[in-house]
Amino acid sequence: MIAEKMKELVANSSVIRKMFEEGKNLSEKYGAENVCDFSLGNPNLAAPDGIKNAIKSVIEEEDAVFVHGYMNNSGYEDVRKAVADSLNRRFGTEFGAENIVMTVGAAGGMNVAMKSLINPGDEIVAFAPFFGEYRCYASNVDAKLVVVPANEPSFLPDAEVFAKYITPKTKMVIINSPNNPTGVVYPESTIIALADVLREKQKEYGTEIYIFADEPYRELVYDDTVKVPFLTKYYDNTLVGYSWSKSLSLPGERIGYIAVSNKIANFEDLTSALNVATRILGFVNAPSLIQRVIARCVDDVADLEFYRKNRDMLYNGLSEMGYDCVKPDGAFYLWIKTPIEDDSEFAEIAKKYLLLTVPGSAFGCKGYIRLSYCVSPKMIETSLPKFKTLLEEVKNM
Amino acid sequence: MIAEKMKELVANSSVIRKMFEEGKNLSEKYGAENVCDFSLGNPNLAAPDGIKNAIKSVIEEEDAVFVHGYMNNSGYEDVRKAVADSLNRRFGTEFGAENIVMTVGAAGGMNVAMKSLINPGDEIVAFAPFFGEYRCYASNVDAKLVVVPANEPSFLPDAEVFAKYITPKTKMVIINSPNNPTGVVYPESTIIALADVLREKQKEYGTEIYIFADEPYRELVYDDTVKVPFLTKYYDNTLVGYSWSKSLSLPGERIGYIAVSNKIANFEDLTSALNVATRILGFVNAPSLIQRVIARCVDDVADLEFYRKNRDMLYNGLSEMGYDCVKPDGAFYLWIKTPIEDDSEFAEIAKKYLLLTVPGSAFGCKGYIRLSYCVSPKMIETSLPKFKTLLEEVKNM
Repeated sequence: MIAEKMKELVANSSVIRKMFEEGKNLSEKYGAENVCDFSLGNPNLAAPDGIKNAIKSVIEEEDAVFVHGYMNNSGYEDVRKAVADSLNRRFGTEFGAENIVMTVGAAGGMNVAMKSLINPGDEIVAFAPFFGEYRCYASNVDAKLVVVPANEPSFLPDAEVFAKYITPKTKMVIINSPNNPTGVVYPESTIIALADVLREKQKEYGTEIYIFADEPYRELVYDDTVKVPFLTKYYDNTLVGYSWSKSLSLPGERIGYIAVSNKIANFEDLTSALNVATRILGFVNAPSLIQRVIARCVDDVADLEFYRKNRDMLYNGLSEMGYDCVKPDGAFYLWIKTPIEDDSEFAEIAKKYLLLTVPGSAFGCKGYIRLSYCVSPKMIETSLPKFKTLLEEVKNM
Repeated sequence: MIAEKMKELVANSSVIRKMFEEGKNLSEKYGAENVCDFSLGNPNLAAPDGIKNAIKSVIEEEDAVFVHGYMNNSGYEDVRKAVADSLNRRFGTEFGAENIVMTVGAAGGMNVAMKSLINPGDEIVAFAPFFGEYRCYASNVDAKLVVVPANEPSFLPDAEVFAKYITPKTKMVIINSPNNPTGVVYPESTIIALADVLREKQKEYGTEIYIFADEPYRELVYDDTVKVPFLTKYYDNTLVGYSWSKSLSLPGERIGYIAVSNKIANFEDLTSALNVATRILGFVNAPSLIQRVIARCVDDVADLEFYRKNRDMLYNGLSEMGYDCVKPDGAFYLWIKTPIEDDSEFAEIAKKYLLLTVPGSAFGCKGYIRLSYCVSPKMIETSLPKFKTLLEEVKNM
């Protein structure tokens, strides 16, 4: 008898992951070269050479007992310092090692942050469309996930609407920019407006409301004019969650961090809680060898040009055909309005053409599909004529 | 404002980890060579050379996208198969990849198992003395940790006493052999007696009661005549949790597995739940590169002779002085009756001699201290005269 809470989760097991398995099965049946799998955010781009070299250097130059051993639950002191220094250089923050907790990826980090802050019954606010796993993470701490409806067609949060969803029970607001699944980057004006609302609401209710900035795609922006504001500068009660899964193509390694604002309420207690939560949730610490590698590659980034080209090819190709796409400034997702109302039905029809996509319903926003373009350019090329025939078919429905 | 549940945890933050920090501070003050830190289970033994070689081979021979990429939440199929084959060779089990879930260490594995099985209010049974973190893990799933009192002086569970602690709410029993903190290995007769009790109780209550065998020390036994029974052979509803932290000196890497008995109740649902729990708790998957390394080193073990010598030097040395020690057949801990009643006071006095130990209270069993002997032989040598003077001091109290 599995746990009650797990029964539904097991039954409805993540749409995204199911598609992953389905893709594998279709590949075996029809040949991998014929299946266009746009379903998963698994970078089809090797980690930069710097990673391989750093792994070699670490195991040759550093002591094995140290490299593979326990350290403080928050991570190696020097690694945390290297991360803090890198953030300070790039974003003008004033972090030290004490502001950084190394985490088992962004997913691990978000669970650690929620465990540290959330009481049962607290509300966590997210903006639709959102990464479906937020719902599970909120459930882990018996919180209620409150969803602000999508603001179409820009998919930028509207501060006035947002304000209506903040209650005395709101403890955390998740901001995810560059956004999964829309690829939209929130400009500074949006961040300022949201921060203003939260400051007012904190005063009105006499509560602390924390922003958790979920930023695994921070580095993945495709135009020099697009800036991703660093949120600790705009709002004191901010934690920034990061992962090198995308920027260094290391999703399997489970390595990320939480950066805590110097001005956050109860800094000492909160950073201690993050440390303890890392331990008691069973993470214990972020994987050690990869932490040491990160210290040596902290300013490296994967080949963004690869993703930019993919974006342009896919966005331009589909837009020209007549698909209604949100132009993604960042991340590696394309968010498309489905030509028929039912996004799940559309995704099913697409499968006949060996096109694997994720229906918007998985992100709390019907009538759209998400394509991940962290794939081979060849696959995008192969897919375009298929998308064209698909559009013709559904137009005639 | 941190979460209510975290407040006490932050305040009482793990005794073991506090000692770790304290040891560092004492080392800075008095010189590392003068501090004898027996407090933490952090192997002072480098990982076998095979690990270094395997890391190099993996990054040279395998595709980087594959090595650092996502895979099924339960782990790479071939790695799980390699683990299953190794268990089959060594213990005569009949596992396939489907029986194995790769985990973020044993701590990650235990949290995944509890999330998969436990409903709020369920009871999880542990035998005193026990690894103090069990209490936190049980709390994560709102379970009640029921503690069977220590059976002195053997520290082997007594089946009749055990039976009294099994109720209709019992969902899981944790068996940890070789044991932390006593070093005791449960013989087959003990396992059979406990399994018989559980089968009877399952029938009586019409419930399923699962054994979680927490086995990070399985390979660490110091005598060919000592066998560690593999629990799936004795009881159907068994999950075995393992970690390579100790056997391959990789505690920082967070790599382990859960092996699920073929005959466990609801095998399909349970293994799916373990997969989903790995995902939603934020682990997502066990770190990928180290998974691939494990596949190449699955039968390797650290230098047991190193630990055996340490055990003999410490156990013989302290016993001869007059300390009342439990002879450890396995793990790398020595469990000593404190010469004064108050174990915390004794540990405090020991600190004056720069001897760092963990009071038994941290393991739910007063009147004892635990020494970890995964340390340098030199440190044990240095410590012996200190322990002698310490004993003389407390005898005169």
